[in-house]
Amino acid sequence: MKNLSTEQYREEFLHYLKQSLTAKQPTNLYEPIAYILNLGGKRLRPVLTMMAADLFGADYHEALPAATAVEMFHNFSLVHDDIMDKAPLRRGCPTVHHKWNVNTAILSGDAMLILTYQLLEHYPPAVFGRLTQLLSRTALEVCEGQQYDMDFEVRSTVTTEEYLLMIRYKTAVLIGAALQMGAIVAATSPDNQQHIYNFGLQLGLAFQLQDDYLDAFGDDTFGKQIGGDILENKKTMLYLKALELSDAAQRTALLQHYATTDQSPEKVAAVKQLFQQTGADTVVRKAIAHYTDEALASLDSLAIDEEKRTQLRTFAIDLMDRKI
Amino acid sequence: MKNLSTEQYREEFLHYLKQSLTAKQPTNLYEPIAYILNLGGKRLRPVLTMMAADLFGADYHEALPAATAVEMFHNFSLVHDDIMDKAPLRRGCPTVHHKWNVNTAILSGDAMLILTYQLLEHYPPAVFGRLTQLLSRTALEVCEGQQYDMDFEVRSTVTTEEYLLMIRYKTAVLIGAALQMGAIVAATSPDNQQHIYNFGLQLGLAFQLQDDYLDAFGDDTFGKQIGGDILENKKTMLYLKALELSDAAQRTALLQHYATTDQSPEKVAAVKQLFQQTGADTVVRKAIAHYTDEALASLDSLAIDEEKRTQLRTFAIDLMDRKI
Repeated sequence: MKNLSTEQYREEFLHYLKQSLTAKQPTNLYEPIAYILNLGGKRLRPVLTMMAADLFGADYHEALPAATAVEMFHNFSLVHDDIMDKAPLRRGCPTVHHKWNVNTAILSGDAMLILTYQLLEHYPPAVFGRLTQLLSRTALEVCEGQQYDMDFEVRSTVTTEEYLLMIRYKTAVLIGAALQMGAIVAATSPDNQQHIYNFGLQLGLAFQLQDDYLDAFGDDTFGKQIGGDILENKKTMLYLKALELSDAAQRTALLQHYATTDQSPEKVAAVKQLFQQTGADTVVRKAIAHYTDEALASLDSLAIDEEKRTQLRTFAIDLMDRKI
Repeated sequence: MKNLSTEQYREEFLHYLKQSLTAKQPTNLYEPIAYILNLGGKRLRPVLTMMAADLFGADYHEALPAATAVEMFHNFSLVHDDIMDKAPLRRGCPTVHHKWNVNTAILSGDAMLILTYQLLEHYPPAVFGRLTQLLSRTALEVCEGQQYDMDFEVRSTVTTEEYLLMIRYKTAVLIGAALQMGAIVAATSPDNQQHIYNFGLQLGLAFQLQDDYLDAFGDDTFGKQIGGDILENKKTMLYLKALELSDAAQRTALLQHYATTDQSPEKVAAVKQLFQQTGADTVVRKAIAHYTDEALASLDSLAIDEEKRTQLRTFAIDLMDRKI
């Protein structure tokens, strides 16, 4: 590795992204694409692609088109998901369907999905083939995850296993694929590719579960409203596990809270207490630790220098260290 | 060529399509895909892919995955376009967003676009690369065409050149690409690939202009309501050319007719008369003949047996012989 910090990878990526976003006609199709891609964000996925290429001995510049494809795909899914979720804001700014309209958001999203594939044309046929196959499989899984998510909203019962499958598809596989794309660009062994994918997949699961957990039990240093998921009656792992572990009285109370549109801090406090009384909070904390351990175990299987392994381990621990 | 009739190609395609559509989870994502693909239609595009493979010496069976990809992409665009156009019916049946809902139509459409790429994984890397590059370029153009079409609806002035660019992107390029995909599968020369693409492109333009023309001046043997475009105030080539060629009085009359939601046969008759008085009908007939001639000229450039050339010529003439 060139020992770039994640901040340095991000800077390099943003520089490349800026060059890639040239003004094209028709404006109504391409402006929303530049808009959403310039909204910011951590750029975690493209940074992972560059980092993985670097890790397996390639020049990380060679991974920039793949990194851009990953970010393009991620933003495609945001644009279409925001329509489906009727979300007015994304990173504090109007969503594409809000700033323009639903038709523009559908069509610009479609173009972004196509541009994702087109960005990979930078690579020679064999590499292109491996990258696009991984992309297509991952992209279909992301669609399946979004469908499960929408299905679960209207279903009365969802098991925690079903929930875990949903977040695996909707979130975790793209983290794994972002890393594997860098590994493919670096032409490392199929074994290394599989291990780095698993590292990302497990880390993605841990990350999403931690997101759910912090929404209820985090402090507010992240600027997110505490209890937002509870106020939206979102069926997170905490809620589903609490239902599973509850006695009759707790179950009735939880179901009643989730049947209201009450937006009071009292509701949040009462539901959090139920999460704790049922032991759901402990189960979720253990699950986060489990998936983090699994991710770190995948690192041990990688055939790389100890120094590089340590750097990746540090990255993973930093990422998860947002405070449980 | 194996001298299959278009009907026989279609039968073979439908047989292959049926096998490809296996039931998958989640049902709400995959059922709409099977539904729209089973709605029928002429299957013109996949037949063209098979026919082109055959024409350039390949076994047309080898073109079936590419033919299915082309049909999958076409149906993806129908599902998303129907949302944007708020169309309740497609081939006499409820559209996907009507039978299910808009979210399902967005997401199933997305999955269809990804499946299009995945179907091409059947081919070895070099062929896969050529097919996907053609697909991505064409798919972006189709999105651009749809955007121009939506832009034109709300613009007060559109030139006939702009209209021709729109139908080229929205309709004609996919006809060209369907043929070229068959040519790529057959590994024919780049020259032949270019000529067969041009043949499809020009034929697609002629076909779309003829569609516009017959909507006003066809007889009703095709089951389409005569004057549907006029009642919808659609800015077709006939309308735009009539505006260009009209004197002040004709222009005022035409604009007035297109400013109403009048659904009477009298409106259709009056507008058709204006199309004729301005000479727009003649110009459009000439344009159809011009693009048909251009298509046939592309055939003359193909390095193939005379017998095969004659068969393609007959196909093109039959396709256009719907009666002007």
